[in-house]
Amino acid sequence: MSDTPDGGETYSYLGPAGTFTELALRQVEAARGKPWRAVNNVGEALDDVVSGRSTAAMIAIENSIDGGVSATQDALATIPGLRILGEYLVPVGFSLVARPGTRLDEVRTIAAHPVAYAQCHGWLDRTLPAHAHLPASSNVQAAAQLLETDASGRPSSPADAAIAPPNIVDHHAVEVLADDIIDNKQAVTRFALVARTRALPPATGADKTSIIAELPTDRPGSLVELLEQFSTRGVNMSLLESRPMGDALGRHRFIIDLDGHVHDERIADALLGVYRFTPNVIFLGSYPRADRQPVEFDRRYADEVFVEARDWLRALLSEEPEA
Amino acid sequence: MSDTPDGGETYSYLGPAGTFTELALRQVEAARGKPWRAVNNVGEALDDVVSGRSTAAMIAIENSIDGGVSATQDALATIPGLRILGEYLVPVGFSLVARPGTRLDEVRTIAAHPVAYAQCHGWLDRTLPAHAHLPASSNVQAAAQLLETDASGRPSSPADAAIAPPNIVDHHAVEVLADDIIDNKQAVTRFALVARTRALPPATGADKTSIIAELPTDRPGSLVELLEQFSTRGVNMSLLESRPMGDALGRHRFIIDLDGHVHDERIADALLGVYRFTPNVIFLGSYPRADRQPVEFDRRYADEVFVEARDWLRALLSEEPEA
Amino acid sequence: MSDTPDGGETYSYLGPAGTFTELALRQVEAARGKPWRAVNNVGEALDDVVSGRSTAAMIAIENSIDGGVSATQDALATIPGLRILGEYLVPVGFSLVARPGTRLDEVRTIAAHPVAYAQCHGWLDRTLPAHAHLPASSNVQAAAQLLETDASGRPSSPADAAIAPPNIVDHHAVEVLADDIIDNKQAVTRFALVARTRALPPATGADKTSIIAELPTDRPGSLVELLEQFSTRGVNMSLLESRPMGDALGRHRFIIDLDGHVHDERIADALLGVYRFTPNVIFLGSYPRADRQPVEFDRRYADEVFVEARDWLRALLSEEPEA
Amino acid sequence: MSDTPDGGETYSYLGPAGTFTELALRQVEAARGKPWRAVNNVGEALDDVVSGRSTAAMIAIENSIDGGVSATQDALATIPGLRILGEYLVPVGFSLVARPGTRLDEVRTIAAHPVAYAQCHGWLDRTLPAHAHLPASSNVQAAAQLLETDASGRPSSPADAAIAPPNIVDHHAVEVLADDIIDNKQAVTRFALVARTRALPPATGADKTSIIAELPTDRPGSLVELLEQFSTRGVNMSLLESRPMGDALGRHRFIIDLDGHVHDERIADALLGVYRFTPNVIFLGSYPRADRQPVEFDRRYADEVFVEARDWLRALLSEEPEA
Repeated sequence: MSDTPDGGETYSYLGPAGTFTELALRQVEAARGKPWRAVNNVGEALDDVVSGRSTAAMIAIENSIDGGVSATQDALATIPGLRILGEYLVPVGFSLVARPGTRLDEVRTIAAHPVAYAQCHGWLDRTLPAHAHLPASSNVQAAAQLLETDASGRPSSPADAAIAPPNIVDHHAVEVLADDIIDNKQAVTRFALVARTRALPPATGADKTSIIAELPTDRPGSLVELLEQFSTRGVNMSLLESRPMGDALGRHRFIIDLDGHVHDERIADALLGVYRFTPNVIFLGSYPRADRQPVEFDRRYADEVFVEARDWLRALLSEEPEA
Repeated sequence: MSDTPDGGETYSYLGPAGTFTELALRQVEAARGKPWRAVNNVGEALDDVVSGRSTAAMIAIENSIDGGVSATQDALATIPGLRILGEYLVPVGFSLVARPGTRLDEVRTIAAHPVAYAQCHGWLDRTLPAHAHLPASSNVQAAAQLLETDASGRPSSPADAAIAPPNIVDHHAVEVLADDIIDNKQAVTRFALVARTRALPPATGADKTSIIAELPTDRPGSLVELLEQFSTRGVNMSLLESRPMGDALGRHRFIIDLDGHVHDERIADALLGVYRFTPNVIFLGSYPRADRQPVEFDRRYADEVFVEARDWLRALLSEEPEA
Repeated sequence: MSDTPDGGETYSYLGPAGTFTELALRQVEAARGKPWRAVNNVGEALDDVVSGRSTAAMIAIENSIDGGVSATQDALATIPGLRILGEYLVPVGFSLVARPGTRLDEVRTIAAHPVAYAQCHGWLDRTLPAHAHLPASSNVQAAAQLLETDASGRPSSPADAAIAPPNIVDHHAVEVLADDIIDNKQAVTRFALVARTRALPPATGADKTSIIAELPTDRPGSLVELLEQFSTRGVNMSLLESRPMGDALGRHRFIIDLDGHVHDERIADALLGVYRFTPNVIFLGSYPRADRQPVEFDRRYADEVFVEARDWLRALLSEEPEA
Repeated sequence: MSDTPDGGETYSYLGPAGTFTELALRQVEAARGKPWRAVNNVGEALDDVVSGRSTAAMIAIENSIDGGVSATQDALATIPGLRILGEYLVPVGFSLVARPGTRLDEVRTIAAHPVAYAQCHGWLDRTLPAHAHLPASSNVQAAAQLLETDASGRPSSPADAAIAPPNIVDHHAVEVLADDIIDNKQAVTRFALVARTRALPPATGADKTSIIAELPTDRPGSLVELLEQFSTRGVNMSLLESRPMGDALGRHRFIIDLDGHVHDERIADALLGVYRFTPNVIFLGSYPRADRQPVEFDRRYADEVFVEARDWLRALLSEEPEA
């Protein structure tokens, strides 16, 4: 990975310290001991990468409850020259936190990012039926603001409590009123480390390939024709999301994750088929799966089958009879 | 449409008055002169319908810029017994509004729902490079709050301005600082009128059918197999969105809009094929398209072809020779 | 099965007595003790059926070595109103026969139908390298003619020997010079019993359905589209043969055998799909497989799945909510 | 084309002189002025090629009325190392010929190859209702034998007339009783010139590619999967015939002609796909179409699209950013 202009590697992430994105970045060995930049949103994070201010940026890409992160998908579809270097999973968990001394039954107004609020809605309705929600653009920030005061020494935030990641107490002196308040205990968020480098991580046998493709026409069967590029080569999709292209209702691009690495013959061949079908296709990279689970596929689509087929065709086309 | 318990029809919509949802509901002839209930979110709106408090609810279902409305899609996938009676399009446009007397160059903090903020981001960055964003859960509410004061007579909202629909001035005494600040002038939101009735709107030749389907397995080609149920019957999809099922990453359900009415033979036959492929399919209804554009399809899939095929098979199976 | 005009059942077969076709007809229980008509070719046999002279005719339809019998396939494609009532397999075996007293090493000229000659060619080349072939239109007839003499008492056939079915000795006083001279010991011929009746044999779970279909166009993928009518319903083809339509090179009709009975939901539904795709389709009948092997198929395509799907759709379309 | 052992080129064809096969060979410019070998059947013709006795052999491959020539198809499927160099069309026409002085109304017995007899059956039935058929292995030979006499000077053939190609009178002193007696005036036979050379004729834009493929399994959809290799690359099939493999009923190989040359990217890519699907595939060659009609295909599958796709993928995989 090439260094940034100032000679060292820098990593951007959605801050402030304590966010799930920061937890994801902590999983990146290469980022340890390097400077990290906390930014406010995906656009800033990718702008750091494009401008060269950062070597790479960690961004949320998919949530097991909420689905694809639209802002990320749209940014990846429109900003050229980006590559995903790896994916990272962070279990999502929330605590209800407040100013020290606050009792749970005193909580009236809860500050939270709308997505976090939606994920804890069941618990809150059962536990604090009369609560009100104050939307925040960042859970960690909302929790930090609980401790801020104005000139007269009174809390500057109108909220009594905030929803925050469990590790918030490592960063701010808030008090935990309740742990593990998320409704779905399996919730997990998938993050991607994105850079401008063109060096591909090597194939590990447990890889993913991400692309974004537009359909050339909207006649019936056009999407089927696109997806057949994968099914006829035994390639599984772990993600298919559609995103509006923004110019009109009914026009979509597709965010697709494939099981396998572009160095796998069946993936490379499928990508050739996709490109022939629609040149409006963006290759976002091949990288190791976060879960390290080896990709399973029918041996009919193994690398050696592709090599044998090419050898067979080459021999057919040579003018010398086979030995 | 059956009446509500109290003997009259009532309609729910995402309030307060002045929202795009209200504009959508104004397009519904049957709702004129009937009581309307302004609610806070999709969940409340559908709860009104399910409980019988309202005859129908208007909910946002898809945005030309932002894509499917996740909360709506997830609610439709999990609340049984709902039917879409019609779709309505509302062009999305925004004004920047403030307390009377405010000058544009005085604006520092702008209250806005994150989606509206994202849609005006380009204009704001060019016009007010130093602005800050205060997330709000409702644009109309944020605009109204600009006029509220606390006990000491000072504005209770820290915001200087708000992003709001152009018709906000019909409801609140705010002043328009700038009109038409949305970046994409073609932006439009699609709304659905949802009820519990089982009476289908009649086929008009310009209809849509909405379903939600889960794949029975995640082997390669499973989605292709689902979509072939449409392509082999000449049925076009105007929408395909995937939503996580929430139990694990990689498990999705698909939100699908088909061109045509379930009373069209090719749609009914395709639905039979879908159900055989996956019994986990929800039929959300057939209803007239908002744009009233007649559905175009290959005559090979016309109703009479299905009827002829059945007549042919029936004659084959009868023991009497054909006349 | 309706009787012939004279009040009794009659069966036609490719004669004379001793042919493989006669062996096939012997397998038909209903034909025992009824009059049989030996005819000269498939055309005559089907003409007997069409004219009502015979109740049914046994005709060769496919040979494990030689493939589909063209004359039969073309006759079934062009003569309307025919139905296959059953299929019958006869192992093909040949003996070399001659006038009594002939020695194998005396054989110079061998009379045989070209197909039979081709099937014994290997053995003949090894055993009688210098032999000549005299083409015959019927093996049994050629064997019988060995015994005929002219006015002067000399053999009227120039042949020294003939290739004939092993049971020829039951009918004619020829002598067997060698048994089992066929090159492929697994050779078998498939026969069909054809009638005008419209009563279908009941489904047994081990059935076949025969159709003949023309493609509506010759664009790429047209045949795939036809065959998808089967694969998308889990229907296996045990036979796919193409036959030229005779009007121009490159125009074909397809002879297709499906595993299953038209009373099986998946077969009936596939036939509807085929008819919609191409109205130029002929249904030749559903009948028990000769080998009595139950048809295996994915339970996703079981009858009850089709019934459930229809029940589901019917409930959707009813105006009463489900109980 | 390499010469035969004796230093010169030799061509084999189904004789004797005067056959349609000879007419086909006359169309081959390279064969003019070279020695031609008249052989008795396809097996001998191909044996000449394999053994090196002949440079190439002309063999009948498909008849517009009768379909594929089984013996040819089976020989091509089982004899390795053969290549088709070109195809040639010969219109099929027949005359009824007899010994000089014979009147049409005297004709009782007609010698003819069974295929020729079948093709003139309608005319014969109308004109000579009482005629008898004497099967012959060669029409030309049967016509020639009409003129042969035995020791006592009497005709040695029991036939009164023969069915023969119109040009028979160039070779034998028979008299034409009736011209143009074939029932289908459009009948045409397709011949192939077959050799052992591995040099491919250059692509002309009006080419065919012939292959023979076995299915790897007989599950439903297996044939569809094979044919999708063509349809997903916009490749049209001008011929699809199935031939039994001979080991058991229900096992088939497929004779396939594709529109295009293996030097066309879409054909080469389709062949790779076929080989990966089933390694039991025989490439019989690419050669100019007899009708010289340029192949039409969707520009989405043009050579340059394949080249662009490869360039795109290669650029993706290079570590240098694109210029």
